[in-house]
Amino acid sequence: MPRDSGATKARLLDAAFSEFAAYGIAGARVDRIAEAASANKRLIYVYFGNKEQLFDTVLERAFALGAEAVPFDAANLPEYAGKVFDHLIARPDLVRLLTWKQLERPGATELETSAYRVKTAAVANAQNQALIDDNLDPTDLLALVLALAQAWFTVAGGMGPSGKSDPWSTQQLAQHRAAVVHAVRRITTPGG
Amino acid sequence: MPRDSGATKARLLDAAFSEFAAYGIAGARVDRIAEAASANKRLIYVYFGNKEQLFDTVLERAFALGAEAVPFDAANLPEYAGKVFDHLIARPDLVRLLTWKQLERPGATELETSAYRVKTAAVANAQNQALIDDNLDPTDLLALVLALAQAWFTVAGGMGPSGKSDPWSTQQLAQHRAAVVHAVRRITTPGG
Repeated sequence: MPRDSGATKARLLDAAFSEFAAYGIAGARVDRIAEAASANKRLIYVYFGNKEQLFDTVLERAFALGAEAVPFDAANLPEYAGKVFDHLIARPDLVRLLTWKQLERPGATELETSAYRVKTAAVANAQNQALIDDNLDPTDLLALVLALAQAWFTVAGGMGPSGKSDPWSTQQLAQHRAAVVHAVRRITTPGG
Repeated sequence: MPRDSGATKARLLDAAFSEFAAYGIAGARVDRIAEAASANKRLIYVYFGNKEQLFDTVLERAFALGAEAVPFDAANLPEYAGKVFDHLIARPDLVRLLTWKQLERPGATELETSAYRVKTAAVANAQNQALIDDNLDPTDLLALVLALAQAWFTVAGGMGPSGKSDPWSTQQLAQHRAAVVHAVRRITTPGG
């Protein structure tokens, strides 16, 4: 009987995700990942290569899951931003993973560059069809919309959800989401 | 003659800033800080306490310098955001320092909480005077304005200035700054 390598790989990737989200690339320990996945450490090297390569795989998987959970919609950027907000609320560890990436692996990966290019082209197209405002360059509009969607997670002087011991109430959550959607509507409505 | 402890302290704080910006709290090495400042390592403990306390001092100093360089102006948030953008362009290491803080010391420091409260009150006041739009709660408006000012530094899928090997041209810089100011104007203009 072949061992169930698919299940082991999945467990290792989940454990690696948690470990990288908690400690970053430099701080992550392959031993802890193997232990959390109840797998032999050697298998990590066999399946994924070294720690840096494992991080790349985890990052790629996170991007793929994100793109699946929140498809980009240039014609309805307010609602897209709201869904990104929802996704980040549901996955606080994802925000941490991407933040470590920004510090320890600055610059765009090939995957990011190509995903960014696809989104920018969709924004330009929606602008040409007058579906959204065309005052801003598509790259700027995209960067600003993403920043609004992530505002409470990346800045806000530590006042965001990740830094608080008491989580937001349902009402606060709804208020912050509505504010994001409102702001994106303001900057994307044609001639707004 | 007393030794020039003020100059040594200043050199240590500058070296500590660079070290923390590069490696974060866990990754920073007190030895490297002492060496970069041409000072005795023991003096760090005498002047600032342990590594964590040194980080707090560096962070506090960065906040103070930031507040001095870019005074908050609730009545002119577009220009305030533009100046925050300029400050971050001039101090890329500051963005890294704050990002490490977010990961390694999540949650608001007392200083952040009180600075945030002062800004929020000023926003509420400007809303009451109908100087800026009052559709959004002051806390949301503040978080979103700060996010726009920092958009190119915190998100943008690694397409921001810190991740690029080729710096932005003067023209790109002006375009991105203008986009930030434009977007903040859109979300703050009364009834806009």
